[in-house]
Amino acid sequence: MNVVIRGRARPFRTVSFDAAANAVRLIEQRLLPHAFRVVATRDYRETARAIRDMVVRGAPAIAATAAYGLAQGARAFRGRDVAAFDRHVERVFETLRTARPTAVDPVNAMREVRAAMAAGRSVAERQALALEAAEGFADRSVEECRAIGRHGAPLIRDGMRILTHCNAGWLACVDVGTATAPLYAAQAAGRRFHVFCDETRPRCQGATLTAWELAQQGISHEVIADNAAGHLMARGEIDLVIVGSDRTLGRTGEVTNKIGTYTKAVLAHRHGVPFYVAIPLSTIDWELRRGSDIPIEERHSSEVLGAWGVVSAPDGTPRRTASGRPVYVRVANPTSGARNPGFDVTPPELITGIITPVGIFRPGELWKQRRRLGGSA
Amino acid sequence: MNVVIRGRARPFRTVSFDAAANAVRLIEQRLLPHAFRVVATRDYRETARAIRDMVVRGAPAIAATAAYGLAQGARAFRGRDVAAFDRHVERVFETLRTARPTAVDPVNAMREVRAAMAAGRSVAERQALALEAAEGFADRSVEECRAIGRHGAPLIRDGMRILTHCNAGWLACVDVGTATAPLYAAQAAGRRFHVFCDETRPRCQGATLTAWELAQQGISHEVIADNAAGHLMARGEIDLVIVGSDRTLGRTGEVTNKIGTYTKAVLAHRHGVPFYVAIPLSTIDWELRRGSDIPIEERHSSEVLGAWGVVSAPDGTPRRTASGRPVYVRVANPTSGARNPGFDVTPPELITGIITPVGIFRPGELWKQRRRLGGSA
Repeated sequence: MNVVIRGRARPFRTVSFDAAANAVRLIEQRLLPHAFRVVATRDYRETARAIRDMVVRGAPAIAATAAYGLAQGARAFRGRDVAAFDRHVERVFETLRTARPTAVDPVNAMREVRAAMAAGRSVAERQALALEAAEGFADRSVEECRAIGRHGAPLIRDGMRILTHCNAGWLACVDVGTATAPLYAAQAAGRRFHVFCDETRPRCQGATLTAWELAQQGISHEVIADNAAGHLMARGEIDLVIVGSDRTLGRTGEVTNKIGTYTKAVLAHRHGVPFYVAIPLSTIDWELRRGSDIPIEERHSSEVLGAWGVVSAPDGTPRRTASGRPVYVRVANPTSGARNPGFDVTPPELITGIITPVGIFRPGELWKQRRRLGGSA
Repeated sequence: MNVVIRGRARPFRTVSFDAAANAVRLIEQRLLPHAFRVVATRDYRETARAIRDMVVRGAPAIAATAAYGLAQGARAFRGRDVAAFDRHVERVFETLRTARPTAVDPVNAMREVRAAMAAGRSVAERQALALEAAEGFADRSVEECRAIGRHGAPLIRDGMRILTHCNAGWLACVDVGTATAPLYAAQAAGRRFHVFCDETRPRCQGATLTAWELAQQGISHEVIADNAAGHLMARGEIDLVIVGSDRTLGRTGEVTNKIGTYTKAVLAHRHGVPFYVAIPLSTIDWELRRGSDIPIEERHSSEVLGAWGVVSAPDGTPRRTASGRPVYVRVANPTSGARNPGFDVTPPELITGIITPVGIFRPGELWKQRRRLGGSA
């Protein structure tokens, strides 16, 4: 999508590849919204560090980054020995895989690149095929988001006020986004609407990422505290909710997403506000049978006891690391701890529809439609 | 209650009076939890500034501060001319009244002090009666909180996990607190329990005040993001909710409280978790007929776009004023705005009971019980 740089809107992908420099180009998300900076990782180890340290985040975005990283590592190989090349590629694969060990999307993306390479007979052919496959993966990822946009856009009518939670925008993808895709498609169709961005504590992705992204796109929006949506719904000020998902159970229609999503679904249900979830097909889990089986990551208490990356030490002194990187230190009383579950599970009865690249489905329909949705069997 | 100062627990009131120095003593709440400091305001103008600048906050606390401030101003008068004294007292009254013009509790408290003074024949007698009345007001305020504690304590059983929102503790009162009163009474009775403190964005009173207060009291607690309570309730980890209220409608049982309270009531109702509101009698509004008539203050967007008083300027530079006082500057994109409603309204059907100094009532019973609850006929 477009990023406004020095007053000019320029087309931009969150993740892209510079073939001449053999570098992965990433928007440095930890600096947003204070600074827009694009970093180029010059070798695959640096690319792995960028994934690990959350320069880039969001399942579709880190999947594309890993795909490019594998091609980058393959292209850096010097020599003609195919067996040595293949051993090198395995090392690259492992380095990138372990950067975010619990994420499954990057592994699937790299497998696709590795499988494509196998058709090449020489090192040079394999290197060329690797890049082609990585570019193909990124392009398909964008196309999937566009398809979500086409299916979701009719939900958005002129004058609507739409709530979203966390960031499932183009900053979480190669481009376009998932929850934001219907917004951008509706905007392209000339519709005007307003978006409320839940701040999304503790990491504030709604305030720091979604609000910034919508500002780049010229979409009317306001940040609200996570506490405010209930009041706005009670006063009739929210017409539609669209969120993303990290894992949706194909068998039950339960949706795992950023902590706080469930609360918004409960409120929307009470107030008769339609609640939609936008997902790429890769986030559907066809195996798990119960939402209560989904492991909910408990993150570090410092995220709750601090804020925004720029926080205060217990003695009241503001702190930032020398590198300018976010630093979370405790600001509440040193004897106070925190619970910090990272995700929650929304049951199907609270979900109006799931917007996928192949259409909108009720949560209970996913299993019946599993062939169309890429599920096995 | 007790505050741990240099390792020793000392009895302390949030608001008190030093008769020898003719000074109001206040806990400087804007520095918590980073620093515990008691400020003494040396004249009534300084006391008014402390109310206006939120050194002290919470309806019962600012009511007592205004009562003491009026006595302080009266005692500073030099001379024997009763008519001149009365004119001086009116100026003091006006200065304190306009410090927080929308709050009604300080006005009622000062009226009580002024009425008591009228019985004195000389300036010296009136000055003595003023202090006596202010001390009486503060003592009754504490006694009312203790009575809330006695009625509410039986709700709290061993091993319970209790959620609270914002700060309705002794930092919001002269002592004891309202929502916290049942906790302290149960603790005194030897019961053990755990409290989840909603962070309470945007001003984070749960994280900075309630967590600190519970730490002083030695009560087991954790801060959670406002987004997390729904997940914890869904997993059966919350047994009871107790919150305070800024205004409860005697005719309907609707409860106005800090933004986010309504959301917690909706969640509690869905999960069958009892939801209680603890209130002093002065917060019951016997006039208004509908919750939708309650004006909901829209506060400045900077509270949502910044955090914790220590935030980052748009260029990424952390900032604090030279005086060390909280400074809110925008951290989200300069083109992003925010909505910031300060309160919401919880309907009676979501409220299990209202804990008052004279007993626990269902919200629908308040009007029938209005004589016992201090309502006019």
